[in-house]
Amino acid sequence: MSFPSLKNDVFIRSLLRQPVPYTPLWLMRQAGRYLPEYNQTRARAGSFMGLAQNPEYACEVTLQPLERFDLDAAILFSDILTVPHAMGLGLDFVAGEGPQFARPVRTEADVSALRVPDLSELRYVFDAVSLIRKELDGKVPLIGFAGSPFTVACYMVEGQGSDDYRLIKGMLYSRPDLLHRILEINTQATIAYLNAQIQAGAQAVMVFDSWGGVLADGLFQQFSLAYTRKVVEGLVRENDGQRVPVIVFTKGGGLWLEDIADSGCDAMGVDWTVNLAKARRRIEDRVALQGNLDPMALFGTEDAIRTEARRVIDDFGPVGLGGHVFNLGHGISRFTPPEAVGILVDEVHSYSRRNH
Amino acid sequence: MSFPSLKNDVFIRSLLRQPVPYTPLWLMRQAGRYLPEYNQTRARAGSFMGLAQNPEYACEVTLQPLERFDLDAAILFSDILTVPHAMGLGLDFVAGEGPQFARPVRTEADVSALRVPDLSELRYVFDAVSLIRKELDGKVPLIGFAGSPFTVACYMVEGQGSDDYRLIKGMLYSRPDLLHRILEINTQATIAYLNAQIQAGAQAVMVFDSWGGVLADGLFQQFSLAYTRKVVEGLVRENDGQRVPVIVFTKGGGLWLEDIADSGCDAMGVDWTVNLAKARRRIEDRVALQGNLDPMALFGTEDAIRTEARRVIDDFGPVGLGGHVFNLGHGISRFTPPEAVGILVDEVHSYSRRNH
Repeated sequence: MSFPSLKNDVFIRSLLRQPVPYTPLWLMRQAGRYLPEYNQTRARAGSFMGLAQNPEYACEVTLQPLERFDLDAAILFSDILTVPHAMGLGLDFVAGEGPQFARPVRTEADVSALRVPDLSELRYVFDAVSLIRKELDGKVPLIGFAGSPFTVACYMVEGQGSDDYRLIKGMLYSRPDLLHRILEINTQATIAYLNAQIQAGAQAVMVFDSWGGVLADGLFQQFSLAYTRKVVEGLVRENDGQRVPVIVFTKGGGLWLEDIADSGCDAMGVDWTVNLAKARRRIEDRVALQGNLDPMALFGTEDAIRTEARRVIDDFGPVGLGGHVFNLGHGISRFTPPEAVGILVDEVHSYSRRNH
Repeated sequence: MSFPSLKNDVFIRSLLRQPVPYTPLWLMRQAGRYLPEYNQTRARAGSFMGLAQNPEYACEVTLQPLERFDLDAAILFSDILTVPHAMGLGLDFVAGEGPQFARPVRTEADVSALRVPDLSELRYVFDAVSLIRKELDGKVPLIGFAGSPFTVACYMVEGQGSDDYRLIKGMLYSRPDLLHRILEINTQATIAYLNAQIQAGAQAVMVFDSWGGVLADGLFQQFSLAYTRKVVEGLVRENDGQRVPVIVFTKGGGLWLEDIADSGCDAMGVDWTVNLAKARRRIEDRVALQGNLDPMALFGTEDAIRTEARRVIDDFGPVGLGGHVFNLGHGISRFTPPEAVGILVDEVHSYSRRNH
């Protein structure tokens, strides 16, 4: 496929630790419920899955935040649970309760029945990627994404969100063989899924390990990071002659930065508990860093938003050599006032240009 | 007050990094809903607060786990929210929803009205401490406790548990002066509360900073740890000629171990994301460590429970010099099979004796 050439490559350059004129930024879940226009499209689509499975709607909401804000990247509007949905687990988004699976994976028989899904089941995602690439017209790069094998397994086993991860950890501590089989299948599915996104036009990809941080030291490395590493190793890192950078984000992974940096990724996402200066010293600049403002800072005064944004930029250090992509440390809250995002974007760009 | 002398001081000795014959253990929330006998007493008491506010009932449930298991310490049965309840915020435990305050603290007027409570409002706690000390008859030491000023403030501002801490963080980022005033009042109240527990007979005290770990780097130090340190500095560390050790536990505080070790505490609680060997190297054995098995490991097979327990003990290193108190990295789950606790206690004691 051939697409218009990229006008703003600051995000890609910074991920590859190449010189940049300012600190690029985008926000996790930037297309979402804090935007009234998103809620309108979602209402037209009828449901979350109706939105995610329709490439036109997915494209529309992906582009919405870029109309409002001078962001340096777009991210595909989708969900990390499309993959287990394609495996036949029956994903539903229950109002006020989040995602739920009709057929969670808990027994040996459930695990034996599990298969890497046929990619044709996920064609709506790849169609959305290509459509968004076309509509972006080279304005900014498009990020594709998937959940990490462990994070996706959490939902597959728990059947929904959890606050103690009792079912998946119960499986880990009583039938680790079953969990390893799920993780292996998720890994193969994720490699195929992300490579198809890259082929469809994604210019960078991100692996969300949203729940790896709930594991004990030692078990994180064994049950989460080992599989994320396999995913990264399985990716086609170039398309159309361009390097496709890979970002790995483990929420709550601050104690394991050295391990994660060795996963083969180009950049590592970090949450707000991590000090970026210390993180750089620990990983000796082997990979770029993405993050890490607390999303709740956007509920502060204008002054506080600007101060906190500068603190993140200053913690990282000099801007010119790249290696930092500004972001939140987790998805933006649905209650965020959109004006707060405008202030943040302005401060990150203007302050980092001044301190270039 | 004069109490029977202590027969088993292994817990106290290990906290003070003195030689011990084995690794002592107790479990956070060891008196609780996973025990049928607890549920029976609670049913008789009518409600959680009915249980906590009645010294006889509180004593009864405190001693229950010691009847079943060979634990090395008892911990007062109570709740970290007794202090704001005494401030007049109206604590209620709603079935299935956890603690709620009728009158949360959110506005400048709310903060201005806040006062350090009269200790007579908390007399039921100190009476329970003295009664438990008497009934323990020197079997094992009794731990008193309180929430950290920040953790207690989370509940006071949110009015209940939260998964994003939007209200307290909104206050932090928009009216930090108000939050500092709450924290100062909580600090003074906590010092008085813990000193009264010590005077009533508590032989060690623990400060639970359950939610400090949700703060950004830099803000944790400023809004949580600085106040915990003031609490530690304000404590009377000796009673009846015995040193009263202080344990500070910050869930999710693994990135800040060096800072927490400098709080003046004798020991630091750590959750399961922390590797104990690395933790010891980082803090250079300035304080003892308490932890850190994932409570969910108790849902594993007998073999897994024993393996994971040994892993924690081995990570800490040689047993003989003390400095380690075995515990979970968070409170025990209400769904835990009591037999699993029996296996854990057996393994910790027998394995650490063998590896002495």
